[in-house]
Amino acid sequence: MHKTAVIALGGNAILRGNQKGTTQEQYKNLEDTLQNLVYLIKDGYNIVLSHGNGPQVGNILMQNDAGESLYDIPAKPLDVCVADSQGSIGYMMQRTLQNILKKEGINKEVVTIVTPVVVSKDDPAFDNYTKRVGKLYTKAEADIMTAQKGWIFKPSPKKKDAWRRVVPSPKPRQIINEDIVKNLAHAGVIVIAAGGGGIPVFYDEEGHLQPLEAVIDKDAASALLATRIGADELYILTDVPFVYKDFGKPSQKALKSVSQAEVTHLIEQKAFGEGNMLPKVESALFFITNGGSKSIITEANMLGQGGDGTQVVG
Amino acid sequence: MHKTAVIALGGNAILRGNQKGTTQEQYKNLEDTLQNLVYLIKDGYNIVLSHGNGPQVGNILMQNDAGESLYDIPAKPLDVCVADSQGSIGYMMQRTLQNILKKEGINKEVVTIVTPVVVSKDDPAFDNYTKRVGKLYTKAEADIMTAQKGWIFKPSPKKKDAWRRVVPSPKPRQIINEDIVKNLAHAGVIVIAAGGGGIPVFYDEEGHLQPLEAVIDKDAASALLATRIGADELYILTDVPFVYKDFGKPSQKALKSVSQAEVTHLIEQKAFGEGNMLPKVESALFFITNGGSKSIITEANMLGQGGDGTQVVG
Repeated sequence: MHKTAVIALGGNAILRGNQKGTTQEQYKNLEDTLQNLVYLIKDGYNIVLSHGNGPQVGNILMQNDAGESLYDIPAKPLDVCVADSQGSIGYMMQRTLQNILKKEGINKEVVTIVTPVVVSKDDPAFDNYTKRVGKLYTKAEADIMTAQKGWIFKPSPKKKDAWRRVVPSPKPRQIINEDIVKNLAHAGVIVIAAGGGGIPVFYDEEGHLQPLEAVIDKDAASALLATRIGADELYILTDVPFVYKDFGKPSQKALKSVSQAEVTHLIEQKAFGEGNMLPKVESALFFITNGGSKSIITEANMLGQGGDGTQVVG
Repeated sequence: MHKTAVIALGGNAILRGNQKGTTQEQYKNLEDTLQNLVYLIKDGYNIVLSHGNGPQVGNILMQNDAGESLYDIPAKPLDVCVADSQGSIGYMMQRTLQNILKKEGINKEVVTIVTPVVVSKDDPAFDNYTKRVGKLYTKAEADIMTAQKGWIFKPSPKKKDAWRRVVPSPKPRQIINEDIVKNLAHAGVIVIAAGGGGIPVFYDEEGHLQPLEAVIDKDAASALLATRIGADELYILTDVPFVYKDFGKPSQKALKSVSQAEVTHLIEQKAFGEGNMLPKVESALFFITNGGSKSIITEANMLGQGGDGTQVVG
């Protein structure tokens, strides 16, 4: 029986903050990152890949804004923009990985599933919008968007007198098409799914799927997906080799192998950066708490060298 | 054994020419169109859905152009824009159909597959670019795009002194993930695939999949997909109830049931509009010639009423 691994690629695995965002840059980053998965694939793992979409959906939102300004093309809502990004990032990943497999002489199919993810309308996230999306607005511009579209804004922490739209980031509750992902992965197909944390939807009172203007954390969605398909291992790929407790303090320490109990304790002690490493650690813990045998947080490069980074185990 | 039908939705089933292109309009059109499929689904058919993307990818191209002008966001190449459109149109179709099924008390899953489609670099289409895409340019603007990006332009047939980019429309040769589509459909899942005719790719000398700036005819891709998955019936949904021979001439006649031989003869006689009905009739014929038992060209509404439109049979 082959082991199944869910591997979540960070946004920076595809588009780095200091890059302009050309398609060529994204392909180059994807080649570098995905090459590191060959060793897991050769080791016989069944693979499900998820990915971030922060920079890409940010660009799509700005392109929508620009298209409305210049050509009067109606801007698409956030959920539809996330769907756009699943299509294009999924395609770029699929083609890149298929070509790497060909080069390596590995005969495996790759498929991309457009994935809505269900959240709850009662999620506390709807009382506190936290996720910044799209471009910077002046106060006057922001007020117009609030009047026109009901958007909520918060001041940018980086730039003075600049405002950015904020949206809720509710917890993922159900991955649409999870059985299809599971069956394909168990049949040896490499499945790309739940990109960008999934397209946010909720069930209304009649049981109909309705859209939502929200962003789901991609590590949380990946951990839920890993749990639901009965994966053995969850890999959260980021831009550092290890998770550090007390990062930037004298007590800073790289974590190698930590137990569920230790991680829970460290979270209580606020040992992880809230906006950054905490959601990853929580997702790693969620997977272990719900039946997973190993969660790994590291950079793709470490994986390619057979290293392990930070392991959370049962 | 259930019959399998591939159903190709025309672009106007999702966004009509006289509409502005809001997401609400597209959902309304999709509801009207997809409601007509309930009778086939209740009849026990396994269903694969494909769709056009002309208006949507046109908007995405213009949004990319506007994003580059206003915010210096690198525009994505055409293949990546097609992938975007597969994500968003697929998601909108999937959610709409899932809700219709719920309302009808039908327990079936819907899934969207991002689908690259392989063409040949030797296709004669690369000697004669025919497909107009994107916005209108002045001659001066067009010359700049040609110098910067190598784009080829032709004058607009509709507007004076306006130029539009043209791209090749090569024949589809292979549907990536066709076996996955087939297996899912045969298992009773409604599969949305090959949207917009598929994301155009080709195999280079090393057998690697490379991208192409092209547009594949969605009916041709749907007919190939129908053939490859061994479908029984192909439905090409458009905005007229029947195919007419000699449309607009005194000899105009609606075609009800026509044989493979009759259709071949009518094509030779140039009885169908070249840019419009001919590709649909050729796709219908391709399917019948390659083992399909029935191709139907009609409007969705006709289907919903149990009517048949124009049938091409063996």
